[in-house]
Amino acid sequence: MKQQRQIDVKRFESTEGFIYQYQKLIKEVVIPYQYAVLHDQVEGVEKSHVVANFENAAKAVRGEDIGDGFYGMVFQDSDAAKWLEAVAYSLVNFPDTDLEAKADSLIDKIEAAQDTDGYLNTYYTIKDKDKRWTNLLEGHELYCAGHMMEAAVAYYEATGKDKLLRVMQKNAAHIYQHFVTEGHEGYPGHPEVELALLRLYHATGDEKCLALAKHFIDVRGVNNRFYEEEAARRDWSVWGNDATDYDYQQSGKPVREQRDATGHSVRAVYLYTGMADLAAQTEDQELLDACRHLFESITDRRMYVTGGIGSTVEGEAFTVDYDLPNDTAYAETCASIGLMFFASRMLEAEVDSKYADVMERAFYNTVLAGMQLDGKRFFYVNPLEVLPGISGEIKTHRHDLPQRPGWYACACCPPNVARCIASLGKYAYGENERTAFIHLFVEGRITFENGMVLECKTGYPYEFKVEYKVTKGSGEMAVRRPDWSSSYRILVNGTKVAAEEKNGYYYLKDLKAGDKVEIFLDDEIKKLYASTKIASDTGYVTLQRGPLVYCVEGTDNEMDVLSLSYAENGSMKAEAYEPAFLGGTVRITADGYRTCEGESLSSTGNYSMIKPEKMPCRITAIPYYTWGNRGLNQMRVWLPER
Amino acid sequence: MKQQRQIDVKRFESTEGFIYQYQKLIKEVVIPYQYAVLHDQVEGVEKSHVVANFENAAKAVRGEDIGDGFYGMVFQDSDAAKWLEAVAYSLVNFPDTDLEAKADSLIDKIEAAQDTDGYLNTYYTIKDKDKRWTNLLEGHELYCAGHMMEAAVAYYEATGKDKLLRVMQKNAAHIYQHFVTEGHEGYPGHPEVELALLRLYHATGDEKCLALAKHFIDVRGVNNRFYEEEAARRDWSVWGNDATDYDYQQSGKPVREQRDATGHSVRAVYLYTGMADLAAQTEDQELLDACRHLFESITDRRMYVTGGIGSTVEGEAFTVDYDLPNDTAYAETCASIGLMFFASRMLEAEVDSKYADVMERAFYNTVLAGMQLDGKRFFYVNPLEVLPGISGEIKTHRHDLPQRPGWYACACCPPNVARCIASLGKYAYGENERTAFIHLFVEGRITFENGMVLECKTGYPYEFKVEYKVTKGSGEMAVRRPDWSSSYRILVNGTKVAAEEKNGYYYLKDLKAGDKVEIFLDDEIKKLYASTKIASDTGYVTLQRGPLVYCVEGTDNEMDVLSLSYAENGSMKAEAYEPAFLGGTVRITADGYRTCEGESLSSTGNYSMIKPEKMPCRITAIPYYTWGNRGLNQMRVWLPER
Repeated sequence: MKQQRQIDVKRFESTEGFIYQYQKLIKEVVIPYQYAVLHDQVEGVEKSHVVANFENAAKAVRGEDIGDGFYGMVFQDSDAAKWLEAVAYSLVNFPDTDLEAKADSLIDKIEAAQDTDGYLNTYYTIKDKDKRWTNLLEGHELYCAGHMMEAAVAYYEATGKDKLLRVMQKNAAHIYQHFVTEGHEGYPGHPEVELALLRLYHATGDEKCLALAKHFIDVRGVNNRFYEEEAARRDWSVWGNDATDYDYQQSGKPVREQRDATGHSVRAVYLYTGMADLAAQTEDQELLDACRHLFESITDRRMYVTGGIGSTVEGEAFTVDYDLPNDTAYAETCASIGLMFFASRMLEAEVDSKYADVMERAFYNTVLAGMQLDGKRFFYVNPLEVLPGISGEIKTHRHDLPQRPGWYACACCPPNVARCIASLGKYAYGENERTAFIHLFVEGRITFENGMVLECKTGYPYEFKVEYKVTKGSGEMAVRRPDWSSSYRILVNGTKVAAEEKNGYYYLKDLKAGDKVEIFLDDEIKKLYASTKIASDTGYVTLQRGPLVYCVEGTDNEMDVLSLSYAENGSMKAEAYEPAFLGGTVRITADGYRTCEGESLSSTGNYSMIKPEKMPCRITAIPYYTWGNRGLNQMRVWLPER
Repeated sequence: MKQQRQIDVKRFESTEGFIYQYQKLIKEVVIPYQYAVLHDQVEGVEKSHVVANFENAAKAVRGEDIGDGFYGMVFQDSDAAKWLEAVAYSLVNFPDTDLEAKADSLIDKIEAAQDTDGYLNTYYTIKDKDKRWTNLLEGHELYCAGHMMEAAVAYYEATGKDKLLRVMQKNAAHIYQHFVTEGHEGYPGHPEVELALLRLYHATGDEKCLALAKHFIDVRGVNNRFYEEEAARRDWSVWGNDATDYDYQQSGKPVREQRDATGHSVRAVYLYTGMADLAAQTEDQELLDACRHLFESITDRRMYVTGGIGSTVEGEAFTVDYDLPNDTAYAETCASIGLMFFASRMLEAEVDSKYADVMERAFYNTVLAGMQLDGKRFFYVNPLEVLPGISGEIKTHRHDLPQRPGWYACACCPPNVARCIASLGKYAYGENERTAFIHLFVEGRITFENGMVLECKTGYPYEFKVEYKVTKGSGEMAVRRPDWSSSYRILVNGTKVAAEEKNGYYYLKDLKAGDKVEIFLDDEIKKLYASTKIASDTGYVTLQRGPLVYCVEGTDNEMDVLSLSYAENGSMKAEAYEPAFLGGTVRITADGYRTCEGESLSSTGNYSMIKPEKMPCRITAIPYYTWGNRGLNQMRVWLPER
C-alpha cells in the first residue's frame, strides 16, 4: 500500500516562478523544435525519420511494399513517445489547440502502425516481422512499448483522450499473450516497460498490466543466462552487445537479491522505478527491501554531489563504490531523470525526506544542467570538471563535452528533460486520503483529491521563504525539511506551531481555507565535503545554497580556475539576485587564493621545489545548472580548500 | 659534433653500491628467468616460442617445410634481442662462460635464421615471405631489426665477438638495398631502427648504416599519407591499426617540423633518440632544434613527476599538455627507458644538466618501479595512484594494475629494464678528449679513453656524499649539479676549489692520480608543487629526497591514504637507513592530518555539510620505486596539503 502518491498531473497549475519559466521554455522552444526534428524539418540536423517510420509501418501493416523504409536507431519510436508525453503535460498549463491537433495526428499515425495482433514497433514491422521478440538483449521493443505506454497515460490524463491508451492496452495484451500466456522466456534488455505497465495499470485498472509488470520483474535474473541462450538462437545483432555482461543489464541475479546498483545507469534506475512501484502496489516487502538497498547503493556510494549517476562512459554505467571521477564522469541527464522517478516511487512506498532530497538534488543540478538556458542545446553527459583542450577532445574524455551540442542522432535526453520539467508538479506534490505532501517547493496552484487547494508563492530556489495559502477545503499538510536546511521554521497564520516531525516531514493538522503556511528555509551558503573515500575529491570542497550546487567557470575567474582554492575560514556571500544574468541567478563570491606558478625544476617545467605564492582573491561561483552557457571555458565543481 | 659521448660499456665496473646490487639482481634473477621463458621452460607462463621461432625460420630458409611454425607477437624476435643485449652488458661485470655460451648458441640460431639476401625476421620468414616490407605500419620488421642491431653492437662491445654484428651489418645492407637503392617508399611504424643503425654506425663505421638512419628520419612524415597508401595496397593487417592516426605514429609532418611529443610514447622517444643522435653526428642544427622542442614538450608539459610519460592507455600515448591523470596514467616502463635514451643523446649533443636530471628522474622512479624488488615481476604501467577495487578492475583503470604481474605475452618491458640497468654505466658517465663527465652518481671504477681512471664510492641515492678518487692518469672532470640539490659543495683533496660552472656542470681542471674529489649533495626533503595547470595535482604536494620521489602506501598508514594530507609547515624527517626494509631504504615521516568522515547529508552518504575533523598524524612515505612490494594496498604519490 502506498503511503502517498504523486498528484495527477492536471492538478498542478502555475503562472509564475522558477519552474513555470522552465515549463514555458519547454512549451515555447523545446516542444516545437523537437516536433520539427521528428518531422525532419530542421536543416543541418541529422534525419530523425520518426514520423516517417510510423507512416511506413502503417503501410507495412496494410501489406504495402515500402522497401527499406526504416531509418534511425532501433529505439527510434521512443522519440515520438517522449515528445507526446511532454506535449501532454505541457497542455495542462498551456492549452494549445494547434499543438493538440498535431499530437492527435501523430497518435493517428501510431494507431495505424499497430499490427492487427496488437504489436507496435516500426523497426520490426518495417524491417522484418520474423525478428520480433528474438533479441530482447538489444532489440528495445519492450523499451519502445514502455515509452509509448507512458505517453498514452500522460495524454489520457492531460486531455481525457483515450485513443493512444486503447492502442497501448491492446499492445500490453499482445505482450502479455506472448510472454505470459504463451510462456516465451525473456525480460527486457533495457528496462522501462515495467514502470510503464504499472502506470498503465494505475490509469486503467487493467490487471493484466500489473501482472505483466510483475512477471518481467519476477523473472529477471532468475535464468541469468537467458541473454546468452537467446543470442545463441539468432544469427543477427544490433550492436553486438555482450550477452554475458550481467552487470550491464542488471540480470546477474533475481532482482530481489540485488544489492549494488550496477551497469547501464539509465537501465538500472528505470528497472528500480518499476520495482519500487510494484513493491508498494503489491506490498512486497522483499522487493521493497531490495529497492532500499539499491537506493542506498546509489545515493550513499555511487552518486555525484550534483545528483549525477554513472561514473564511466564504458557502458554508460555505474562502476564501484566511491569511484566518482569529475572529469570523466558520465552522469547522463536521463539517468538523473530516472533517479528522480525511482526516488519518487520510493517516496510513495515510504514517506521519507531523503527520497525527496535526492529528487531535488538530481533535478536542480544535473537535470537542469542537461539543457542550455535557451532550451536549444542539451548535454547527455554532465561532468564536474571541464578543461578546454582535454574535455571532449582526448580519447578518454571524448564524451565529456565542454559545450552543449545540438540534437543527437540518439535523442534520448532532450525529450526526457522536456517531459520531466513539464510534469514536475507530480514530483513536487503528493497526497493520500488524509494528507497533502509538499516534497519540492514549486510555485503554483495544487488541487488535492480531498478537495483541499493550496496556492504556493515562492522565489525558490533563490529565495528561501515558501508560502502556501489554503484557498479551498481543509486537511493535513506534510512539509519536507530538506537535508541541507540547517535552520527551518514554519509559521501558520504568522504563529509558530508545534508540528509533529516524522522522517523529515512536518505534519500540520487541521488546516482550513484561509490559512497561510510560511516556511523559512536556510539561506546560508554551505561548504560541502566529500567522503574521504572519494579519491577525486579529497582535500576539495564545493558550495551549495538551497538545493543548488555551485561551480566555478573560467569566464568569471580570469579564465583560470585550476589555480583557485577556497579559503578554509574565508567569507562567502550570496550576491543580489540578477534577473538578467544566466537566466536570473545569484552568484556566490567567496574568499580564496590563487596559487601562482612556482619556479620550475630545470628538468621539468611541471614541478617546482619552491613553495608557490598564494595570492588572496575573491572567487565567483555560479549554480552548476547554469554552466556552459557562455562559450568554451574551464569549469570545476570541486576546488581545493586551504 | 658531439660535445661528449657515453663511455664504452666495458669501461664501467663495480663491485658494490645501489646500482651494483641491481645489476647483480639482473644477472642472478632476471637474465636466467628470461632465458627460461624464451626457451619455454617456465611452467604457467604463456609460451614465448622465441627460440623455436628462430629454429623454424632457419628451417624455412633452408627450404624445409615447417607448417605453422611461428608463435607469438609480430615483434616476438625482439625479446631475444633485448635478452642478448642485457646479457652482453651483464657479462662485463659478471663474467660467466656458461651464460656466454648460451648467448653464443642463440646467436648461432639467429644467424641460421637469416635469409641469404640478408633478411632476418622469423615472423615473415616462417609465415609468408611475400609479405615482407608490405606493412611497415604494423609489421615491426624494422623494429625487430633495430633491436637485433643493438644486441649485436652490445655483444660485440662487451665480448669482442662479432658474429651477430656481421649478421646485422648484412641485414642493414639488405634494408639499405630495399629502401634506398631500390627506392621503395616507407618508414618504420615503430621507430627503433634509426637509433640502432646509428649505434651500428658508431661501432663499425659503416657509412651505409648512417645513411640509412638518415634516410628513415628524413622521409618520415614527408608523405604523411604513406601508411594509408600502403594499407590500400594490401589485403591483410596485424591489428587493424588506424593508418590515418598521424599523431600515433609521429608521421603527421616531417620530423624537423614536429614540435609536440605525440602518439605512442615509446615510439616517440625511440624516434627522438635517433633524431638526436643523427643531429649531433651530422651537425644538423634544424634537426637538433626539433629535438630540443620535442624534449621540452615532454619534460615541460607532458611528463609525470616520476619521469613517467604517456598519459593514456588509448594508444599508450601522449595526450595534450598538462593532462597528467594519476590513477589512469599509462607511464610505461619502456617509455621512461626510451626517455633516458633520448636524454642521453641530447646530453651528447649539448652538455646541459637538465638532460641528466631527466634521465635520473626517469631511472630512479619509473624505471626502477617497473621491477619488483626481487626481480621476478614487472609493471608495464606505472600509475601515481592506486586504489584496490578500482585500479586494474574497472574498465577505465584496467591497465593500472595494483600489483606487478608475472611475465606478459607482450614482453617488452622486463628485458628493457634488464638492459637499461645492466648498461647504466653508459648513462652515468661520458667523455670527450679532454673531460670526464659525471652525469649520474654511480659507485664503481670508470676508465676513460684519455687514460684517467676514477673510483667512485657513494651510498647514493640514500647518502649524499659522493667521492671520486683519481687512481690513474690525469685530466678534467665535469660534475653535474642536480636540479633538486639546493645546497652543493665540492672539495678537492679536502679543499674548496673555484670551479667553473656551465649549464649545470662544475669543471674541475688538472686533476691527477691521487686526487680526491668529494661532492656533497643536498640531503633535505623537498616538497614538490605541481604546475597549477595540472588539474589532477592542484592543491596537492609530493616529497622528493635526492632523486627519489616518495609515495604513501596503505600498509604504512593504517590502510587508508585517501584521508591523509601533508601539513603545510609540518616537520619532515628522513629516518635512518633500514637495510632490511624494502631492499634497503629510507622512510620519510612527515606531519600531516587524517581527515575523519563527516556526518553525511541524509540524501547522500558521500557528502557532508559538517566540516570534518582533522586529526594530526604522522605520515610514512616510501620511495616510489619500492611501492607495490607488500601486497595489495592503496598508493598515492600526491597528497593534499593543508
